[in-house]
Amino acid sequence: MTEMPPASDESGGARQEPVAFADPTYRAAVVDLLGAIAYGEMSAFERLADDAKLAPTLQDRAELAAMASTEFGHFCALRDRLVELGADPFAAMEPFRGPFEAFHARTAPSDWFEGLVKAYVGDGLAADFYREIAAFLDAGTRDLIIESLADAGQSDFVVDRVRKAIAADHRVGGRLALWGRRLMGEALSQAQRVAAERDALSALLAGGVDRPALDLAAIGRMFTRLTENHTDRMARLGLAS
Amino acid sequence: MTEMPPASDESGGARQEPVAFADPTYRAAVVDLLGAIAYGEMSAFERLADDAKLAPTLQDRAELAAMASTEFGHFCALRDRLVELGADPFAAMEPFRGPFEAFHARTAPSDWFEGLVKAYVGDGLAADFYREIAAFLDAGTRDLIIESLADAGQSDFVVDRVRKAIAADHRVGGRLALWGRRLMGEALSQAQRVAAERDALSALLAGGVDRPALDLAAIGRMFTRLTENHTDRMARLGLAS
Repeated sequence: MTEMPPASDESGGARQEPVAFADPTYRAAVVDLLGAIAYGEMSAFERLADDAKLAPTLQDRAELAAMASTEFGHFCALRDRLVELGADPFAAMEPFRGPFEAFHARTAPSDWFEGLVKAYVGDGLAADFYREIAAFLDAGTRDLIIESLADAGQSDFVVDRVRKAIAADHRVGGRLALWGRRLMGEALSQAQRVAAERDALSALLAGGVDRPALDLAAIGRMFTRLTENHTDRMARLGLAS
Repeated sequence: MTEMPPASDESGGARQEPVAFADPTYRAAVVDLLGAIAYGEMSAFERLADDAKLAPTLQDRAELAAMASTEFGHFCALRDRLVELGADPFAAMEPFRGPFEAFHARTAPSDWFEGLVKAYVGDGLAADFYREIAAFLDAGTRDLIIESLADAGQSDFVVDRVRKAIAADHRVGGRLALWGRRLMGEALSQAQRVAAERDALSALLAGGVDRPALDLAAIGRMFTRLTENHTDRMARLGLAS
Protein backbone atom coordinates (compact mmCIF):
# COMPACT_ATOMS: atom_id res chain seq x y z
CA MET A 1 0.00 0.00 0.00
CA THR A 2 2.95 2.33 0.58
CA GLU A 3 6.29 2.74 -1.14
CA MET A 4 8.12 3.47 2.09
CA PRO A 5 11.09 1.22 2.81
CA PRO A 6 10.78 -0.83 5.99
CA ALA A 7 11.69 1.25 9.02
CA SER A 8 14.07 -1.41 10.35
CA ASP A 9 15.84 -4.57 9.24
CA GLU A 10 14.22 -7.99 9.42
CA SER A 11 15.93 -9.03 12.61
CA GLY A 12 13.57 -6.84 14.64
CA GLY A 13 13.99 -3.10 14.65
CA ALA A 14 13.36 -2.38 18.33
CA ARG A 15 16.87 -3.48 19.29
CA GLN A 16 18.58 -1.07 16.87
CA GLU A 17 16.72 2.15 17.52
CA PRO A 18 18.47 5.52 17.45
CA VAL A 19 19.99 6.56 20.77
CA ALA A 20 17.17 9.05 21.39
CA PHE A 21 14.84 6.10 22.16
CA ALA A 22 16.91 5.27 25.26
CA ASP A 23 15.06 8.19 26.87
CA PRO A 24 11.63 6.83 27.92
CA THR A 25 10.09 10.29 27.69
CA TYR A 26 11.22 10.55 24.07
CA ARG A 27 9.86 7.09 23.24
CA ALA A 28 6.52 7.96 24.90
CA ALA A 29 6.32 11.19 22.92
CA VAL A 30 6.99 9.41 19.61
CA VAL A 31 4.38 6.74 20.41
CA ASP A 32 1.92 9.53 21.27
CA LEU A 33 2.66 11.42 18.08
CA LEU A 34 2.45 8.36 15.82
CA GLY A 35 -0.77 7.37 17.60
CA ALA A 36 -2.25 10.80 16.91
CA ILE A 37 -1.25 10.72 13.24
CA ALA A 38 -2.48 7.12 12.86
CA TYR A 39 -5.86 8.08 14.32
CA GLY A 40 -5.96 11.03 11.97
CA GLU A 41 -5.23 8.83 8.95
CA MET A 42 -7.90 6.29 9.86
CA SER A 43 -10.29 9.13 10.46
CA ALA A 44 -9.34 10.69 7.09
CA PHE A 45 -10.00 7.32 5.43
CA GLU A 46 -13.49 7.17 6.94
CA ARG A 47 -14.30 10.78 6.20
CA LEU A 48 -13.23 10.57 2.54
CA ALA A 49 -15.15 7.32 2.09
CA ASP A 50 -18.16 9.06 3.62
CA ASP A 51 -17.82 12.16 1.47
CA ALA A 52 -17.59 9.96 -1.61
CA LYS A 53 -21.33 9.36 -1.23
CA LEU A 54 -21.96 13.08 -1.79
CA ALA A 55 -20.04 13.10 -5.07
CA PRO A 56 -22.01 14.35 -8.07
CA THR A 57 -20.57 11.72 -10.45
CA LEU A 58 -19.37 8.12 -10.23
CA GLN A 59 -15.94 9.33 -11.36
CA ASP A 60 -15.68 11.77 -8.45
CA ARG A 61 -16.85 9.02 -6.13
CA ALA A 62 -14.03 6.81 -7.36
CA GLU A 63 -11.51 9.67 -6.94
CA LEU A 64 -12.45 10.08 -3.30
CA ALA A 65 -12.37 6.34 -2.72
CA ALA A 66 -8.83 6.29 -4.17
CA MET A 67 -7.74 9.04 -1.76
CA ALA A 68 -9.33 7.15 1.12
CA SER A 69 -7.39 4.00 0.21
CA THR A 70 -4.13 5.99 0.09
CA GLU A 71 -4.81 7.35 3.59
CA PHE A 72 -5.44 3.82 4.79
CA GLY A 73 -2.04 2.79 3.39
CA HIS A 74 -0.46 5.57 5.46
CA PHE A 75 -2.31 4.31 8.50
CA CYS A 76 -0.88 0.80 7.95
CA ALA A 77 2.72 2.13 7.86
CA LEU A 78 2.20 4.03 11.12
CA ARG A 79 0.53 1.06 12.80
CA ASP A 80 3.42 -1.23 11.76
CA ARG A 81 5.95 1.22 13.15
CA LEU A 82 4.11 1.43 16.48
CA VAL A 83 4.24 -2.38 16.69
CA GLU A 84 7.99 -2.28 15.95
CA LEU A 85 8.40 0.17 18.80
CA GLY A 86 6.75 -2.38 21.09
CA ALA A 87 3.59 -0.28 21.47
CA ASP A 88 -0.03 -1.40 21.09
CA PRO A 89 -1.05 0.78 18.13
CA PHE A 90 -4.70 0.93 19.14
CA ALA A 91 -3.88 1.89 22.72
CA ALA A 92 -1.60 4.60 21.28
CA MET A 93 -4.44 5.90 19.11
CA GLU A 94 -7.12 5.80 21.80
CA PRO A 95 -6.29 9.12 23.60
CA PHE A 96 -6.84 10.98 20.32
CA ARG A 97 -10.26 9.54 19.60
CA GLY A 98 -12.00 12.21 21.68
CA PRO A 99 -10.37 15.30 20.12
CA PHE A 100 -10.64 13.94 16.56
CA GLU A 101 -14.27 12.89 16.91
CA ALA A 102 -15.10 16.23 18.53
CA PHE A 103 -13.49 18.04 15.61
CA HIS A 104 -15.40 15.94 13.08
CA ALA A 105 -18.70 16.30 14.95
CA ARG A 106 -18.30 20.10 14.94
CA THR A 107 -17.27 20.24 11.29
CA ALA A 108 -19.59 17.72 9.62
CA PRO A 109 -19.83 18.93 6.00
CA SER A 110 -23.35 19.74 4.89
CA ASP A 111 -22.57 19.19 1.21
CA TRP A 112 -20.00 17.95 -1.31
CA PHE A 113 -18.00 21.21 -1.45
CA GLU A 114 -17.75 21.63 2.32
CA GLY A 115 -16.40 18.07 2.40
CA LEU A 116 -13.81 18.88 -0.28
CA VAL A 117 -12.65 22.06 1.46
CA LYS A 118 -12.39 20.19 4.73
CA ALA A 119 -10.29 17.43 3.15
CA TYR A 120 -7.90 19.98 1.66
CA VAL A 121 -7.72 22.65 4.36
CA GLY A 122 -7.99 20.32 7.35
CA ASP A 123 -5.50 17.73 6.14
CA GLY A 124 -3.14 20.49 5.00
CA LEU A 125 -3.18 22.13 8.39
CA ALA A 126 -2.66 18.83 10.22
CA ALA A 127 0.20 17.91 7.89
CA ASP A 128 1.92 21.28 8.45
CA PHE A 129 1.59 20.91 12.20
CA TYR A 130 2.98 17.36 12.34
CA ARG A 131 5.84 18.30 10.02
CA GLU A 132 6.78 21.14 12.38
CA ILE A 133 6.97 18.67 15.27
CA ALA A 134 8.75 16.04 13.15
CA ALA A 135 11.68 18.46 12.79
CA PHE A 136 12.48 17.74 16.44
CA LEU A 137 12.65 13.96 16.01
CA ASP A 138 15.12 11.29 14.92
CA ALA A 139 15.53 10.84 11.17
CA GLY A 140 13.62 7.54 10.93
CA THR A 141 10.53 8.87 12.71
CA ARG A 142 10.72 12.14 10.78
CA ASP A 143 10.83 10.33 7.42
CA LEU A 144 7.90 8.08 8.36
CA ILE A 145 5.81 11.07 9.39
CA ILE A 146 6.61 13.05 6.26
CA GLU A 147 5.82 10.02 4.10
CA SER A 148 2.51 9.50 5.94
CA LEU A 149 1.47 13.08 5.33
CA ALA A 150 2.10 13.00 1.59
CA ASP A 151 -0.78 14.44 -0.36
CA ALA A 152 -3.18 11.62 -1.21
CA GLY A 153 -4.17 13.43 -4.42
CA GLN A 154 -6.58 15.79 -2.68
CA SER A 155 -4.97 19.07 -3.62
CA ASP A 156 -5.29 19.22 -7.39
CA PHE A 157 -8.66 17.52 -7.36
CA VAL A 158 -10.18 19.77 -4.70
CA VAL A 159 -8.74 22.99 -6.16
CA ASP A 160 -10.17 22.10 -9.56
CA ARG A 161 -13.66 21.23 -8.28
CA VAL A 162 -13.97 24.18 -5.88
CA ARG A 163 -12.73 26.77 -8.39
CA LYS A 164 -15.22 25.51 -10.97
CA ALA A 165 -18.06 25.72 -8.45
CA ILE A 166 -17.15 29.32 -7.55
CA ALA A 167 -16.93 30.26 -11.23
CA ALA A 168 -20.45 28.87 -11.70
CA ASP A 169 -21.90 30.62 -8.64
CA HIS A 170 -20.02 33.33 -6.75
CA ARG A 171 -22.10 32.89 -3.60
CA VAL A 172 -20.41 29.51 -3.12
CA GLY A 173 -17.13 31.35 -2.53
CA GLY A 174 -18.50 33.44 0.33
CA ARG A 175 -20.03 30.46 2.06
CA LEU A 176 -16.89 28.31 1.70
CA ALA A 177 -14.62 31.13 2.93
CA LEU A 178 -16.61 31.22 6.19
CA TRP A 179 -16.40 27.44 6.34
CA GLY A 180 -12.60 27.53 5.97
CA ARG A 181 -12.29 29.96 8.88
CA ARG A 182 -14.47 27.76 11.03
CA LEU A 183 -12.33 24.70 10.22
CA MET A 184 -9.19 26.60 11.27
CA GLY A 185 -10.79 27.68 14.55
CA GLU A 186 -12.03 24.19 15.46
CA ALA A 187 -8.68 22.62 14.56
CA LEU A 188 -6.75 25.04 16.78
CA SER A 189 -9.14 24.46 19.65
CA GLN A 190 -8.67 20.64 19.46
CA ALA A 191 -4.89 21.00 19.07
CA GLN A 192 -4.80 23.06 22.27
CA ARG A 193 -6.78 20.37 24.05
CA VAL A 194 -4.31 17.69 22.94
CA ALA A 195 -1.31 19.81 23.95
CA ALA A 196 -2.82 20.37 27.40
CA GLU A 197 -3.61 16.69 28.01
CA ARG A 198 -0.60 14.86 26.61
CA ASP A 199 2.38 15.40 28.90
CA ALA A 200 4.84 13.38 26.81
CA LEU A 201 4.12 15.43 23.69
CA SER A 202 4.47 18.68 25.64
CA ALA A 203 7.74 17.48 27.18
CA LEU A 204 9.02 16.77 23.68
CA LEU A 205 8.42 20.37 22.68
CA ALA A 206 10.20 21.46 25.89
CA GLY A 207 13.38 19.75 24.63
CA GLY A 208 15.88 17.36 26.24
CA VAL A 209 19.58 16.86 26.89
CA ASP A 210 20.37 16.31 23.20
CA ARG A 211 17.35 18.02 21.67
CA PRO A 212 16.53 21.68 21.20
CA ALA A 213 13.53 23.14 23.01
CA LEU A 214 10.67 24.92 21.31
CA ASP A 215 10.65 28.24 23.20
CA LEU A 216 7.79 30.72 23.11
CA ALA A 217 9.36 32.69 20.27
CA ALA A 218 9.73 29.49 18.23
CA ILE A 219 6.10 28.53 18.96
CA GLY A 220 5.08 31.99 17.79
CA ARG A 221 7.01 31.56 14.52
CA MET A 222 5.46 28.11 14.05
CA PHE A 223 1.95 29.53 14.34
CA THR A 224 2.84 32.26 11.88
CA ARG A 225 3.96 29.61 9.36
CA LEU A 226 0.81 27.52 9.94
CA THR A 227 -1.39 30.57 9.42
CA GLU A 228 0.47 31.63 6.29
CA ASN A 229 0.17 28.16 4.77
CA HIS A 230 -3.54 28.11 5.60
CA THR A 231 -3.97 31.46 3.85
CA ASP A 232 -2.09 30.12 0.81
CA ARG A 233 -4.33 27.07 0.63
CA MET A 234 -7.49 29.17 0.87
CA ALA A 235 -6.13 31.44 -1.89
CA ARG A 236 -5.45 28.44 -4.12
CA LEU A 237 -9.11 27.50 -3.69
CA GLY A 238 -10.07 31.04 -4.64
CA LEU A 239 -11.27 31.78 -1.10
CA ALA A 240 -10.57 34.68 1.27
CA SER A 241 -9.14 33.50 4.58
CA MET B 1 -3.40 -2.54 -5.11
CA THR B 2 -3.89 -5.94 -6.73
CA GLU B 3 -1.52 -8.73 -7.57
CA MET B 4 -3.26 -9.51 -10.81
CA PRO B 5 -1.01 -9.52 -13.90
CA PRO B 6 -1.98 -7.01 -16.57
CA ALA B 7 -4.81 -8.33 -18.69
CA SER B 8 -2.97 -7.54 -21.92
CA ASP B 9 0.50 -6.72 -23.16
CA GLU B 10 1.88 -3.21 -23.20
CA SER B 11 1.23 -2.61 -26.88
CA GLY B 12 -2.48 -2.04 -26.16
CA GLY B 13 -4.71 -4.97 -25.41
CA ALA B 14 -7.77 -4.01 -27.41
CA ARG B 15 -6.13 -5.09 -30.67
CA GLN B 16 -5.32 -8.60 -29.41
CA GLU B 17 -8.56 -9.59 -27.76
CA PRO B 18 -9.83 -13.18 -27.90
CA VAL B 19 -11.93 -13.95 -30.95
CA ALA B 20 -15.14 -13.87 -28.87
CA PHE B 21 -14.85 -10.07 -28.74
CA ALA B 22 -15.42 -9.86 -32.50
CA ASP B 23 -19.08 -10.43 -31.64
CA PRO B 24 -20.45 -7.02 -30.54
CA THR B 25 -23.13 -8.69 -28.41
CA TYR B 26 -20.45 -10.58 -26.52
CA ARG B 27 -18.40 -7.43 -26.00
CA ALA B 28 -21.47 -5.54 -24.78
CA ALA B 29 -22.29 -8.35 -22.36
CA VAL B 30 -18.75 -8.40 -20.94
CA VAL B 31 -18.78 -4.60 -20.54
CA ASP B 32 -22.14 -4.89 -18.78
CA LEU B 33 -20.93 -7.62 -16.49
CA LEU B 34 -17.66 -5.87 -15.60
CA GLY B 35 -19.64 -2.66 -15.03
CA ALA B 36 -21.98 -4.47 -12.64
CA ILE B 37 -19.11 -6.05 -10.71
CA ALA B 38 -17.20 -2.74 -10.62
CA TYR B 39 -20.23 -0.96 -9.19
CA GLY B 40 -20.59 -3.75 -6.66
CA GLU B 41 -16.94 -3.42 -5.59
CA MET B 42 -17.15 0.36 -5.20
CA SER B 43 -20.36 -0.09 -3.30
CA ALA B 44 -18.72 -2.76 -1.09
CA PHE B 45 -15.88 -0.34 -0.41
CA GLU B 46 -18.30 2.35 0.73
CA ARG B 47 -20.41 -0.01 2.79
CA LEU B 48 -17.42 -1.53 4.62
CA ALA B 49 -16.00 1.93 5.29
CA ASP B 50 -19.41 2.92 6.63
CA ASP B 51 -19.78 -0.17 8.81
CA ALA B 52 -16.30 0.46 10.24
CA LYS B 53 -17.86 3.31 12.21
CA LEU B 54 -20.09 0.81 14.05
CA ALA B 55 -17.10 -1.30 15.13
CA PRO B 56 -16.81 -1.84 18.89
CA THR B 57 -13.01 -1.44 18.93
CA LEU B 58 -10.40 0.55 17.00
CA GLN B 59 -8.86 -2.77 15.92
CA ASP B 60 -12.14 -3.94 14.36
CA ARG B 61 -12.48 -0.53 12.70
CA ALA B 62 -9.05 -0.99 11.13
CA GLU B 63 -9.96 -4.55 10.01
CA LEU B 64 -13.00 -3.26 8.15
CA ALA B 65 -11.03 -0.39 6.63
CA ALA B 66 -8.47 -2.94 5.36
CA MET B 67 -11.25 -4.97 3.71
CA ALA B 68 -12.66 -1.80 2.16
CA SER B 69 -9.26 -0.93 0.68
CA THR B 70 -8.96 -4.43 -0.79
CA GLU B 71 -12.36 -4.04 -2.45
CA PHE B 72 -11.26 -0.72 -3.89
CA GLY B 73 -8.20 -2.47 -5.36
CA HIS B 74 -10.54 -4.91 -7.10
CA PHE B 75 -12.56 -2.00 -8.42
CA CYS B 76 -9.41 -0.46 -9.93
CA ALA B 77 -8.55 -3.66 -11.82
CA LEU B 78 -12.08 -3.84 -13.28
CA ARG B 79 -12.07 -0.16 -14.21
CA ASP B 80 -8.70 -0.53 -15.96
CA ARG B 81 -9.98 -3.52 -17.92
CA LEU B 82 -13.08 -1.60 -19.04
CA VAL B 83 -10.80 1.18 -20.30
CA GLU B 84 -8.70 -1.41 -22.18
CA LEU B 85 -11.90 -2.68 -23.82
CA GLY B 86 -12.53 0.87 -25.04
CA ALA B 87 -15.49 1.37 -22.70
CA ASP B 88 -16.16 4.32 -20.39
CA PRO B 89 -16.05 2.51 -17.03
CA PHE B 90 -18.43 4.93 -15.33
CA ALA B 91 -20.97 4.71 -18.15
CA ALA B 92 -20.69 0.91 -17.86
CA MET B 93 -21.35 1.09 -14.11
CA GLU B 94 -24.23 3.56 -14.31
CA PRO B 95 -27.06 1.13 -15.20
CA PHE B 96 -26.36 -0.83 -12.02
CA ARG B 97 -26.51 2.13 -9.68
CA GLY B 98 -30.31 1.83 -9.28
CA PRO B 99 -30.46 -1.89 -8.40
CA PHE B 100 -27.43 -1.71 -6.07
CA GLU B 101 -28.63 1.38 -4.25
CA ALA B 102 -32.11 -0.10 -3.94
CA PHE B 103 -30.61 -3.25 -2.43
CA HIS B 104 -28.53 -1.22 0.03
CA ALA B 105 -31.43 1.06 0.96
CA ARG B 106 -33.59 -1.97 1.75
CA THR B 107 -30.86 -3.76 3.70
CA ALA B 108 -29.25 -0.94 5.72
CA PRO B 109 -27.76 -2.69 8.76
CA SER B 110 -29.12 -1.41 12.07
CA ASP B 111 -26.05 -2.51 14.00
CA TRP B 112 -22.50 -3.87 13.78
CA PHE B 113 -23.53 -7.56 13.48
CA GLU B 114 -26.12 -6.97 10.77
CA GLY B 115 -23.36 -5.16 8.84
CA LEU B 116 -20.97 -8.09 9.28
CA VAL B 117 -23.54 -10.67 8.17
CA LYS B 118 -24.41 -8.55 5.16
CA ALA B 119 -20.74 -8.24 4.17
CA TYR B 120 -20.28 -12.01 4.38
CA VAL B 121 -23.59 -13.34 3.09
CA GLY B 122 -24.21 -10.61 0.50
CA ASP B 123 -20.71 -10.58 -0.97
CA GLY B 124 -20.61 -14.39 -0.93
CA LEU B 125 -23.86 -14.62 -2.87
CA ALA B 126 -22.76 -11.99 -5.39
CA ALA B 127 -19.41 -13.73 -5.85
CA ASP B 128 -21.08 -17.11 -6.44
CA PHE B 129 -23.43 -15.59 -9.00
CA TYR B 130 -20.71 -13.81 -10.97
CA ARG B 131 -18.51 -16.91 -10.93
CA GLU B 132 -21.37 -18.92 -12.43
CA ILE B 133 -21.64 -16.40 -15.27
CA ALA B 134 -17.86 -16.16 -15.65
CA ALA B 135 -17.80 -19.84 -16.62
CA PHE B 136 -19.37 -18.78 -19.94
CA LEU B 137 -16.67 -16.21 -20.77
CA ASP B 138 -13.23 -16.05 -22.37
CA ALA B 139 -10.35 -17.03 -20.07
CA GLY B 140 -9.00 -13.49 -19.56
CA THR B 141 -12.35 -12.08 -18.46
CA ARG B 142 -13.02 -15.13 -16.32
CA ASP B 143 -9.69 -14.80 -14.50
CA LEU B 144 -10.20 -11.09 -13.89
CA ILE B 145 -13.66 -11.72 -12.43
CA ILE B 146 -12.49 -14.54 -10.18
CA GLU B 147 -9.57 -12.41 -8.98
CA SER B 148 -11.92 -9.49 -8.27
CA LEU B 149 -14.20 -11.66 -6.20
CA ALA B 150 -11.45 -13.03 -3.97
CA ASP B 151 -12.35 -12.86 -0.32
CA ALA B 152 -11.14 -9.53 1.08
CA GLY B 153 -10.62 -11.14 4.49
CA GLN B 154 -14.28 -10.94 5.46
CA SER B 155 -14.97 -14.61 5.97
CA ASP B 156 -12.77 -15.56 8.92
CA PHE B 157 -13.25 -12.20 10.59
CA VAL B 158 -17.04 -12.21 10.31
CA VAL B 159 -17.44 -15.87 11.29
CA ASP B 160 -15.32 -15.26 14.41
CA ARG B 161 -17.18 -12.13 15.51
CA VAL B 162 -20.70 -13.45 14.81
CA ARG B 163 -20.10 -16.82 16.50
CA LYS B 164 -18.77 -15.07 19.61
CA ALA B 165 -21.80 -12.77 19.72
CA ILE B 166 -24.21 -15.73 19.48
CA ALA B 167 -22.30 -17.59 22.22
CA ALA B 168 -22.70 -14.53 24.45
CA ASP B 169 -26.42 -14.06 23.70
CA HIS B 170 -28.48 -16.71 21.90
CA ARG B 171 -31.18 -14.22 20.89
CA VAL B 172 -28.64 -12.65 18.52
CA GLY B 173 -28.69 -15.88 16.47
CA GLY B 174 -32.45 -15.76 15.91
CA ARG B 175 -32.39 -12.14 14.86
CA LEU B 176 -29.45 -12.60 12.47
CA ALA B 177 -30.98 -15.72 10.92
CA LEU B 178 -34.03 -13.66 9.93
CA TRP B 179 -31.69 -10.96 8.62
CA GLY B 180 -29.81 -13.48 6.45
CA ARG B 181 -33.07 -14.65 4.87
CA ARG B 182 -34.06 -11.09 4.15
CA LEU B 183 -30.71 -10.39 2.48
CA MET B 184 -31.17 -13.42 0.22
CA GLY B 185 -34.68 -12.31 -0.76
CA GLU B 186 -33.67 -8.74 -1.57
CA ALA B 187 -30.62 -9.88 -3.54
CA LEU B 188 -32.70 -12.23 -5.70
CA SER B 189 -35.25 -9.52 -6.33
CA GLN B 190 -32.59 -7.07 -7.55
CA ALA B 191 -30.86 -9.77 -9.63
CA GLN B 192 -34.16 -10.45 -11.41
CA ARG B 193 -34.54 -6.74 -12.12
CA VAL B 194 -31.05 -6.60 -13.67
CA ALA B 195 -31.69 -9.72 -15.76
CA ALA B 196 -34.96 -8.24 -17.07
CA GLU B 197 -33.42 -4.88 -18.00
CA ARG B 198 -30.03 -5.77 -19.43
CA ASP B 199 -30.52 -7.36 -22.84
CA ALA B 200 -26.81 -7.96 -23.51
CA LEU B 201 -26.39 -9.91 -20.29
CA SER B 202 -29.50 -11.96 -21.00
CA ALA B 203 -28.28 -12.67 -24.54
CA LEU B 204 -25.00 -13.91 -23.08
CA LEU B 205 -26.84 -16.46 -21.01
CA ALA B 206 -28.79 -17.49 -24.12
CA GLY B 207 -25.50 -18.52 -25.77
CA GLY B 208 -23.96 -17.83 -29.17
CA VAL B 209 -22.40 -19.56 -32.19
CA ASP B 210 -19.33 -20.67 -30.24
CA ARG B 211 -20.76 -20.52 -26.75
CA PRO B 212 -23.07 -22.85 -24.86
CA ALA B 213 -26.46 -21.57 -23.79
CA LEU B 214 -27.76 -21.58 -20.26
CA ASP B 215 -31.04 -23.49 -20.68
CA LEU B 216 -33.79 -23.59 -18.07
CA ALA B 217 -32.48 -26.79 -16.53
CA ALA B 218 -29.01 -25.22 -16.22
CA ILE B 219 -30.50 -22.10 -14.62
CA GLY B 220 -32.34 -24.33 -12.17
CA ARG B 221 -29.11 -26.12 -11.25
CA MET B 222 -27.35 -22.77 -10.85
CA PHE B 223 -29.97 -21.56 -8.37
CA THR B 224 -29.68 -24.82 -6.46
CA ARG B 225 -25.92 -24.26 -6.14
CA LEU B 226 -26.39 -20.63 -5.07
CA THR B 227 -28.92 -21.64 -2.43
CA GLU B 228 -26.73 -24.46 -1.13
CA ASN B 229 -23.73 -22.15 -0.80
CA HIS B 230 -25.89 -19.59 0.99
CA THR B 231 -27.02 -22.29 3.44
CA ASP B 232 -23.39 -23.32 4.00
CA ARG B 233 -22.39 -19.73 4.75
CA MET B 234 -25.25 -19.26 7.20
CA ALA B 235 -24.26 -22.53 8.90
CA ARG B 236 -20.63 -21.37 9.22
CA LEU B 237 -21.98 -18.30 11.02
CA GLY B 238 -23.98 -20.59 13.31
CA LEU B 239 -27.28 -19.41 11.78
CA ALA B 240 -30.30 -21.30 10.45
CA SER B 241 -31.06 -20.37 6.84
